[in-house]
Amino acid sequence: MEDQLQLLRQHFEEIVSLTDEEWNFIQSHFEFKSLKKHQFLIQVGQPVDFEYWIIKGLVKAYSINEKGKEHILQFAMENYWVSDHCAFQHQEPGTIFVDCLEDSEFFCLSLENREKICFEVPAVANFFRIKSNHGYINLQQRILSLLTMTAESRYEYLLNKLPKLIQRVPKKLIASYLGVSRETLSRFNS
Amino acid sequence: MEDQLQLLRQHFEEIVSLTDEEWNFIQSHFEFKSLKKHQFLIQVGQPVDFEYWIIKGLVKAYSINEKGKEHILQFAMENYWVSDHCAFQHQEPGTIFVDCLEDSEFFCLSLENREKICFEVPAVANFFRIKSNHGYINLQQRILSLLTMTAESRYEYLLNKLPKLIQRVPKKLIASYLGVSRETLSRFNS
Repeated sequence: MEDQLQLLRQHFEEIVSLTDEEWNFIQSHFEFKSLKKHQFLIQVGQPVDFEYWIIKGLVKAYSINEKGKEHILQFAMENYWVSDHCAFQHQEPGTIFVDCLEDSEFFCLSLENREKICFEVPAVANFFRIKSNHGYINLQQRILSLLTMTAESRYEYLLNKLPKLIQRVPKKLIASYLGVSRETLSRFNS
Repeated sequence: MEDQLQLLRQHFEEIVSLTDEEWNFIQSHFEFKSLKKHQFLIQVGQPVDFEYWIIKGLVKAYSINEKGKEHILQFAMENYWVSDHCAFQHQEPGTIFVDCLEDSEFFCLSLENREKICFEVPAVANFFRIKSNHGYINLQQRILSLLTMTAESRYEYLLNKLPKLIQRVPKKLIASYLGVSRETLSRFNS
């Protein structure tokens, strides 16, 4: 566990500096969780008690509409934070599913603990501020891409932006993420 | 100007507590800007020097694709923060337009000043962290709505979520935001 915690400390220290005393305080607020491939991290209608930092593995966040069609919101792997952020923030039941595409390990942070470490350690507030700002920018880019780009352009954008992630995601899920058929995706590749 | 600054202080204090000394330090990092209806706050290809807090007025953020079609990213009014967040964060030329739908007034915060007040005053770091988190959640909801909902459902969602804003935006722009014709929007209303 010491090795994994060291990875988490590095993740914080890519953005802010921490003393050993601050880090000891911070790390004591995280819990560890391990899941096998196909297991659920978050389910619709269930409590969303944590934000998750992915130590290793790969997950898929998605919504299912009333016709049973799956809409993929996000793929996330090592170093990513994932949750049903809306449900987590408002402590309401989940509105999306998050399941594991590979065996995965997580550090889990509750809302109470997140607010506690943010108000006790200013560097942590700045860390989450900057991460959230990056996340906001990525989502704004995604909205622009959904509004203005063709599926093929969005695929090229993904390949350029997230090449390591895309290699690990089954092609049929990439097709689903882009809103095209598996056959159409093959044509993009050729 | 004192009245407007008081509004900005209230906006911060809806989320965090500030001493008078902290507030005096914070407010000294903002500049004031006033624009008439139709003037641009941000233009594609121009530097994006500030994030803007809207004191009064209404703006539209949008992208224009290679065919000249306008795609509306956001409407924003009093108490909203607006910018080309990606260009601002990376200090790159703007990739979207933001223009005024009404005469508008803004407080402007540069990147350097934002980072300075966030690292000097922990409450400000927490303020922007929490605001950014809310913004992230709203964008995630918007992506889910784009992926899963019909234009009519997205219109009803807007009416419920932002009734005051929607009243002030011309109907043809609402139609454009939803990606439908003005005639289709009229059918939703009936």
